This record gives sequence, C-alpha cells and structure tokens, in this order.
Amino acid sequence: MTTNLKNFLSSIKKTSKMEQFQELKHISGLHVAAVSADLYKNRRDDLALFYFPEGSNYAVAYTQNSIVSESITWNRENTKNNIKALVVNTKNANTFTGEQGLSSLDQIAKTLTESLKNFENENKYEKTKTKDILFASTGVIGEKFPVEKIKTNIPNLISNLRINQNKLIWLKMASSIMTTDTKPKVAYSEIKLGDKIVKIAGVAKGSGMIAPNLATMFSFIFTDADISSVVLNKYLNKVLSNTFNAITVDSDTSTNDMVAIFATKKIKNKKLNTISSKEALKFEKALQTVCLDLSKQIVVDGEGAKKFITVKITNAETIERAKKIAFSIANSPLIKTAVAGEDPNWGRILMGLGKSGEKIDQKKIVIKLGEFIVAENGKISESYNEEKLQEYMKWDAILIEVDLKQGHEQYECYTCDFTHDYIDINASYRRS
Amino acid sequence: MTTNLKNFLSSIKKTSKMEQFQELKHISGLHVAAVSADLYKNRRDDLALFYFPEGSNYAVAYTQNSIVSESITWNRENTKNNIKALVVNTKNANTFTGEQGLSSLDQIAKTLTESLKNFENENKYEKTKTKDILFASTGVIGEKFPVEKIKTNIPNLISNLRINQNKLIWLKMASSIMTTDTKPKVAYSEIKLGDKIVKIAGVAKGSGMIAPNLATMFSFIFTDADISSVVLNKYLNKVLSNTFNAITVDSDTSTNDMVAIFATKKIKNKKLNTISSKEALKFEKALQTVCLDLSKQIVVDGEGAKKFITVKITNAETIERAKKIAFSIANSPLIKTAVAGEDPNWGRILMGLGKSGEKIDQKKIVIKLGEFIVAENGKISESYNEEKLQEYMKWDAILIEVDLKQGHEQYECYTCDFTHDYIDINASYRRS
Repeated sequence: MTTNLKNFLSSIKKTSKMEQFQELKHISGLHVAAVSADLYKNRRDDLALFYFPEGSNYAVAYTQNSIVSESITWNRENTKNNIKALVVNTKNANTFTGEQGLSSLDQIAKTLTESLKNFENENKYEKTKTKDILFASTGVIGEKFPVEKIKTNIPNLISNLRINQNKLIWLKMASSIMTTDTKPKVAYSEIKLGDKIVKIAGVAKGSGMIAPNLATMFSFIFTDADISSVVLNKYLNKVLSNTFNAITVDSDTSTNDMVAIFATKKIKNKKLNTISSKEALKFEKALQTVCLDLSKQIVVDGEGAKKFITVKITNAETIERAKKIAFSIANSPLIKTAVAGEDPNWGRILMGLGKSGEKIDQKKIVIKLGEFIVAENGKISESYNEEKLQEYMKWDAILIEVDLKQGHEQYECYTCDFTHDYIDINASYRRS
Repeated sequence: MTTNLKNFLSSIKKTSKMEQFQELKHISGLHVAAVSADLYKNRRDDLALFYFPEGSNYAVAYTQNSIVSESITWNRENTKNNIKALVVNTKNANTFTGEQGLSSLDQIAKTLTESLKNFENENKYEKTKTKDILFASTGVIGEKFPVEKIKTNIPNLISNLRINQNKLIWLKMASSIMTTDTKPKVAYSEIKLGDKIVKIAGVAKGSGMIAPNLATMFSFIFTDADISSVVLNKYLNKVLSNTFNAITVDSDTSTNDMVAIFATKKIKNKKLNTISSKEALKFEKALQTVCLDLSKQIVVDGEGAKKFITVKITNAETIERAKKIAFSIANSPLIKTAVAGEDPNWGRILMGLGKSGEKIDQKKIVIKLGEFIVAENGKISESYNEEKLQEYMKWDAILIEVDLKQGHEQYECYTCDFTHDYIDINASYRRS
C-alpha cells in the first residue's frame, strides 16, 4: 500500500466507518488514480483520472443551466462515441473563465496524451488522442483555472494508476471528487446476463446546488458490459427521471455537473441491442438501483441536512403534473424548515401543493405524514393526533404523501431539511 | 386616550421609534378599530375592522395559489362594486377549514350587521348587509377557525371604532394585522387633483411566504378620492407588477393574502375616468409610491432578514425575460446565503442567471455588485478587487445588477438575505 493510500485510509476512518459503505469490485478495462494537485492547499486528493486503456463506450447528461463550465463546452465539441480518459478536478469549476479556461483544457489534454505515450507503447495500447479525453470540473465559479498545478501533476497521476479497484480504491476515487460533501458516495451492483457476470460501479459527489433537471452533481458509473454508446444513452435517459432528476437540495442548478456512464466492453455479454428485452430490463434495473442509491446518498449528505424527505404524489392525471407538485413541495423553504424543526405543519404542505399552480380538488385530496392521515375531505383529519405526529417528525426519514385522487400516475422525489448548517456552509463557501 | 391605545403605544415604543414611521393622516369616510379577540392568548390586537359608513368603491387582487382561504372564497362570491366593511383576523388563516371555516364567516357577518344596526340607525347610514363585508384572514393553515372568539368581540370592535385616524391609530391598525412581522408597515402620500387634496394611506403585513404573483401579504390601501371600482382595478393591476409582485422573501406563495384598495369618495375630485390623463397619472404615481414603500418594508422585515437586496436586470429583450432572470437570482438560496455571509460570490449570480433557462450571451453580459463591475467579456473583470467588494458586502442594502446587452427592457425586484433567523422563525412557527 502506498503512502498516499495509507493517508487516505486513516483520514476516512476518522469520519466514517468502512462498514457503512457497500462492497465494490473491480471493473475490468478501467484504471484509476487520484492525487493532490494542491488545489485545496491542504494535501487532499483533488485531481482524478479514470483511464480506459482499450477505450470505452459512454453516454453523458449535462446540466440544463444555460451557463456552463468550459469543461462541458470541451466535452460537447468531442463527438466521439468512444473515449479513453476522464479527468476530474475539484476546487475550480472552470466556469466563466473565458479563453483561459478553455485553452487550459487543450494544454492538459496534450500533457496527458504525451505522458501516457510510454505506457501505451509498452503495453501496445492504441495511443490516446486529445479528443479521447473528457473533463469534469467542480468548485468555485469565475476564478482563474489552475492549469499549471494540474499539468504538473499529470505524470504523478499516471504513475499512480491502479489496474485493480477494491472498496478502498473506489472510496478514494469518490473522495477525490468531493467539494462540500462530508462523505464519499459509492454504489455497486452486479447481475448475470446469460452466463456472464456484469458489474456496475458508481461514484458521485454533490451536496449543494442540487436541483432537478440533472446537473448539480457528478456521477460517474462504470460497467464492464459490452453495450454500445447509443444504447447506453437510452438507458441513461430512462433512469435519470426517477433518480438524479428526482432529487433537490436547494432548487439551485449548477453550471457544471454531469452524469456519465462508461462501458469498457470487457465482458462479452449477449448484445443488448434494444432496451426492452428481458436481459436489457435486468441491466436497466441494476443501473437504476445504482443511480437511485447514489442519488439518495447525495440528498442525505445535502448541505446541512439532518433529515431525508421523500415527497410522493399519487393518483395524478399525468406524471408531469405529479412531478411539478412534488417539486413544488420539495423545494419549499417553509416546508423544509418545518421539517428541520420537527413540526408537523401540514398547512405548509397545502401551501406547497397550491403553489405548484396545478389544479387541486381541495375536497378530495388526502395528505399523509408517514402512515398518519393529517388532512382529508377538505379539512383536518378526524384521526389527527398532534402528539403522535410530533413523535413521527423526530424520525430521520420523513415521508410526505399526497393522494390527488385525479388519475393513476405517481411520482416520487427526494430532498432534505433546511437547517442552520446550510446557512453556515453557504455563507462562507469560498473561504473554506 | 383609551387604555387599549395606551398599551399599544407603550408596546410599540419598546421595539421601534415613533419617528421612524411616516406621518399619516385621516382618510375621511373611514372608521377603524382593532382589539384583542384573544386569538394569540397574549392580549395583542388580532382583530381589525375597517368600516366605511357611507360605503366604499374597491379593487382587490388575491393570491395565485390554487388552494385559498375560505375568506377569499367568501369575498369572491361577493360581486358587489361597493362595500361597507373589511374584517381582518390574524393567527388563523381560515384555510382548509372546510364547511366550518366558510359558515363561520356567515355567522360573523350576521353578528357584525346586527351589531352595527344601532349606530347606523342613529346616524342615518344605510344598513350594512352581510354581502357588504370583505374578510381577510392570516395565520396557521388547517386549524379550526375561532369563530366564537371573533363573534364575541364584534361589539367590542364596534365600540372602539375611531372616526379619525392619526399616525398612532394607523400604526395600531397596521400592528393588529401582523403575524411574524417585527414592525408595523405604513405608508402615506397626498396629491392635489385640480383644487382638491386627495390622500392615500396604506397598511401592510407580511414577512414570510412572500413571493411574486401577489399573495403572501396583506396590504390595504385607503383613499378619500372619488374613483370608480373599475378604474381602481386598473390602477391596482398597473402598479402591482413593480411593487407587491416584485418582492420575494422565500419563493413560497401563501394561500391567503390580498392587496386591496378602497376609495371612500368623500373628496369630490375631478373624475378619473381613464388612467392615462395627466391627473390620473399623478394619482397612479402616488399610489405606486405608497405600494412600493409598503413592498420594500415587507422585504426589509423579511423573516430573519439582515440585508435588503435589489436585483436589477437591464437591456433585456422583453420585460418578461428580465423578470424571469431577476427572480431566478432573487429566489436562489445559494445567492441569499452568500449575501448573508457578506461574500461577494458572483459565481452564484452567474448560476442564478443560467438557472432561469433564458438564453444568455456569456461573452456579452456585465455583472455588477453596487458600482463594482465583477464580470465582463466572459470572465472576471480586470478591475475586480476582492477587498473593495468585501467592504461593499457589509452594507445593509446590496444591489445586484446584470446588463444582458440583448435589448432595451429592464426589471427590478427586491429580496432579502437568508439567515439563521429564517430557520429559527420557521422551524417553530406554530408554537410561537
């Protein structure tokens, strides 16, 4: 074990128990490394490389903010269906950095391809070209991009590349992409497709600027399955709506973030040409599990969050309407502060419902907190029991459920409470 | 001076200096009273009556929340162009109170008309009918409406009616309609229409659930001018957009609140049949001044607010786009917490801009904090000076200005910072 890894292990043991994290395994066809490029000036890992020596198919979804990171601009200009590397830096978002930000990526890409040459020659891998590289940057907006620090550390990254990943390595990678996160976020699933075992491993980061319409976090998911980029893209779009697009911390949408899935094609599974075959649905379910797991970890680690909130809207006319109402409730500061105060103030849920602008039949709707009906028939429930509800509100996970009695569709989204710590973290973010 | 008024005077002197409030005068044709109906169980005034013995023209705008108070339902069923009384209660919103809430208003209206009979007979005023009464309720949602307490106190209200209002009486009325407000909100203006002096006096309440699209506060504005209800309505719609609809505290929209303007017709001014004549524009300007003054007082008193924030978007293609961008910035918890932390984190302004979903030309926009240009030409400004900006962020009033360089329209909205106190107030609202 290198010193680098030993340091990481002792640091993570201070804040978290190793047992609380899922067991993760190696994804063949993937090499990884994380080092400190001194971006945070405190020796923490802040620069990561995910390297696919034999290339990888991939699909990616970006923020819907109309101002985006130069890293996203770079990626969008890269139209290849197969890539070789993903470089991730924290501390600096490379957003609104203008020409300096974009040209920095050119320089880093060139340094990386140069530095990989020897390794690729020795191992007879195809040479990485600058257009084979994806970038992801997260951190403060508008500050000069630290291109020199990153370039200087590229050789260091490469010499730290690991061919095998175990749980500790995955946690190290997940930690290296964190900003205000308090914990690394990892998830893993494996399934049998025909007679082959296919693995899916994912890392994520994000705890503020988390809002629907993607964005606002990084999540990188890796599988050793053989799936084309076109099919990967279909999977990604299908699972996003109920996973990464179903979470909100503060309704703010970052300029930077992305969810990407990579397939190294090392396992020669039965081709998944459509996404509706039995095998394909099996893969989709596993991917969905990994994504939902990571999404929920982001909410649990929401800036200052003490409680996990599920907002479930049932019997809506359409999924779109259910979704609009769910987020109208989940984004309400008044509801989120009431949950922080352990106050079953269901009047604010009503307010949030109505604020959505969607048509609501006041006389029909049923509002529940957990298993307790609080309102029905246009008024407070006959069975309303303030004492029991106050007990319920002390739980770590709160379910807000509204039955609209209008149709048959439903939607569930996830958020957290709004606490003093949110204010503390965000009032002094740039100074930390 | 009655004991009631003496108590009020001593209580307001504890929290505020009388001099900080504007001088307000009497509006003829208006009688007012405020008493404690024990709704708060602490003897504060919580029930108010605005009575127009000879009737009043009026116009009103209600919340756009699709769930509304039974008081609003009552008012909407009242289609008369002329009314005689406005009854305001605090502590209970009369929302989601079902049949009990609505029938309570019937009972109170009947009690009020009965109780006014003697006074009206003696003074030969036309008798008030139940359909001459408007209601406004604010407070907790979903709790049983305290009809008995209110009915019991109607005679008390009537015996406290004051024919003349001075500054102290206006402050008492403004205080009686408060919920989490820390200060009463009053504004006053007078103008000459022809050879007649016309007065406009307004009160308002509101410090949370303040969001655009009206709602979320009460404001009652009274003029002695002779203006028809139709014309009043035109004025109201015209001034709302840049006053009460231009403020946001937490993006939440209440189920209850309303802005109403009443004209007692006691001054026989030149008829304002259109709203574009010179005289009419003079009245509109005075009304706008009163409404903007009250709106800004609401923001300054925003729950937990320490700083007043103006968001100004200039050179937009349309006012609608400017407005959408302005509120995308003004409603961002990340921007509001940065202001609370006195951090010139302009990257978040960029994020807020982009989050609006409106097309932004990154290379053209200019972002200013007060007089300081922080970003232009697609990057941080050459003149950027962190030290000066940190000094500026210590001010009580912060201006965020974005020049879009797309067109010629502009919009300004107002908000406040997001502090610990907001969390404290809203985590325990029902218990206070």
